[in-house]
Amino acid sequence: MVNRIQLLKKSFEKNELDAYIVTDETNMFYFTGFEGGARLLVPADSENILFVYGVNYDDAKATVKNCNVEPMQRGDDLNKKVADQCKKLKTKRVGFDNLDVASYLGLKKNLKKIQLKTAGQAIWDLRRVKDDTELHNMRKAAELTDAGAKAAVEALKPGIREYELAAEVEYAMRKLGSDGTAFETIIASGLRSAFPHGGCTSKKVGKGELIQFDIGARYQHYAADLTRTFLIGKPTPKQQKMYKAVMEAQEKAFQKIREGAKGRLVDAAAREIIKKHGFGQNFPHGLGHGVGLAVHELPTLSNVSKDILKAGNVVTNEPGVYVVGYGGVRVEDTVLVKKDGAERLTKASYELPV
Amino acid sequence: MVNRIQLLKKSFEKNELDAYIVTDETNMFYFTGFEGGARLLVPADSENILFVYGVNYDDAKATVKNCNVEPMQRGDDLNKKVADQCKKLKTKRVGFDNLDVASYLGLKKNLKKIQLKTAGQAIWDLRRVKDDTELHNMRKAAELTDAGAKAAVEALKPGIREYELAAEVEYAMRKLGSDGTAFETIIASGLRSAFPHGGCTSKKVGKGELIQFDIGARYQHYAADLTRTFLIGKPTPKQQKMYKAVMEAQEKAFQKIREGAKGRLVDAAAREIIKKHGFGQNFPHGLGHGVGLAVHELPTLSNVSKDILKAGNVVTNEPGVYVVGYGGVRVEDTVLVKKDGAERLTKASYELPV
Repeated sequence: MVNRIQLLKKSFEKNELDAYIVTDETNMFYFTGFEGGARLLVPADSENILFVYGVNYDDAKATVKNCNVEPMQRGDDLNKKVADQCKKLKTKRVGFDNLDVASYLGLKKNLKKIQLKTAGQAIWDLRRVKDDTELHNMRKAAELTDAGAKAAVEALKPGIREYELAAEVEYAMRKLGSDGTAFETIIASGLRSAFPHGGCTSKKVGKGELIQFDIGARYQHYAADLTRTFLIGKPTPKQQKMYKAVMEAQEKAFQKIREGAKGRLVDAAAREIIKKHGFGQNFPHGLGHGVGLAVHELPTLSNVSKDILKAGNVVTNEPGVYVVGYGGVRVEDTVLVKKDGAERLTKASYELPV
Repeated sequence: MVNRIQLLKKSFEKNELDAYIVTDETNMFYFTGFEGGARLLVPADSENILFVYGVNYDDAKATVKNCNVEPMQRGDDLNKKVADQCKKLKTKRVGFDNLDVASYLGLKKNLKKIQLKTAGQAIWDLRRVKDDTELHNMRKAAELTDAGAKAAVEALKPGIREYELAAEVEYAMRKLGSDGTAFETIIASGLRSAFPHGGCTSKKVGKGELIQFDIGARYQHYAADLTRTFLIGKPTPKQQKMYKAVMEAQEKAFQKIREGAKGRLVDAAAREIIKKHGFGQNFPHGLGHGVGLAVHELPTLSNVSKDILKAGNVVTNEPGVYVVGYGGVRVEDTVLVKKDGAERLTKASYELPV
């Protein structure tokens, strides 16, 4: 496997850093393969140290890669401990990814003359381009998510409750090896399908209603994200029109996704199609977001995105049309960006079997 | 329902505040009944405002309680918008619950002379004492969790994989109306049961191994938390000794839990029993934590806790004995603190049926 900590160290010169304090749990997992560290200290020229509370110490020693493990006692001042180590190493400029205000102020105080710099971007620059191990896990997460979509189709019948459908989706994914869901399953039917984040309730689904399934498995910590909108019975002309707009927009955006494409312009391509179909006011969210260890990460596809796509990015492509008081349609795939185009990682059928 | 925002306003005088900016998603849900706000501004003497991005605006308008909803546009500066409102109201001292460094610095800059104060405690003072609506939901979450434990017992057989057991547990809870899991299900068997956060893998469970099930349903956003340790076959004398120490410690702590008890002393009571059984070095975590909208919240039962229990607190009671290279036992219930004692909300059987 790629030594990701080494890649981070390589970025120090550009980012004017001598050391990095990783505080975000997901980032610590990304670098060490271990969940449950308290802080990861990465100095330019010395041993990396993962600080771990006693409850996780034995587990950490058995699991972590590429760093030493140092136990913390209950009541130890984490900020002081990390700062003392920075002083010992004569660090001058230390970056961090993510801190709450109390930790930031505590760390700053303990570091004294050492400069403390926000440097989250340095880690996102790595995380947004997936390596082979990550892509393997993401393909598997997508495959499990497709199995969830299949289970949804099989369970769908008038009178079943939204949460009962969620139970079938999640069970199918879990039984095949999903770590659990990548996010809270959305099954929003009828009027609530008009809300992009419509949740999942005890409502029974009925014939003729739009029913959104926004689901995702997680495999070895990596997420996938998929939405399908189904309907029991025969769609009305209005529902057909909404569905057609979304499907065309999704395909158009998919054709635009490739290395070098601007996130803003991929979004614009989908938005233009939806506008052409008369739903310009009914698409109130961005077209997509990066997916990986987090279900929402960089790069972003939206009208304010400054991101330029790179091979190895994984993004969602999820246009939607939402009519408040009526219902909504969204169709979403998780897509891998390649040199010359894109590849859908999720492949579930878009239509109910006839 | 209690107007929780009013209760927050009542705390302003004591906390020397004229307004509060709520930023934590769970806190925003606690006050407004809506998930997906960007900021909630609570001024002492004016209308409360929930700032919401466009994607959630229609949903928010249909859902929120006790406040106005103000839409944000993509690219709007949230810090500026909130700060401008504070200036308009001639606020002098504004508290907040939780901010990342960038938002904190951005808000501070925009607020200019207005004092910005960390005041998370003011909200925890409310959240840690559950009202009747909350207790109703927590009882239901505990009941669903018990159903998960029952499903675990029914599915348990040599050769089944840990994640397959998780699938059965989660399916049983979900089908009965759980929102999803309150945390990542832990099913840690054999050597990994010696790690308090042992995860859930594709390992098959075997006869004679200690198998920890740490599971929790969520109902109407409220969590429950339960651990049982099971074993297929006949336990060894050492396993029996570990189990006995943990069960006695849990019961002893349970007897101590009541209004007025110190978190530190409840922990000490359990710890003493475990020490008496010869496992003083094998209990590397605190006895328990508060449960509610978050699965880990206040008050805390541990050797560094300064909390004093109040009626309406809900806490876990979860002693454990972990022997690295061998295995571990933990038994946990979610417990309601009352005036004169305590009540177990989770009630699943501690033993496999014979």
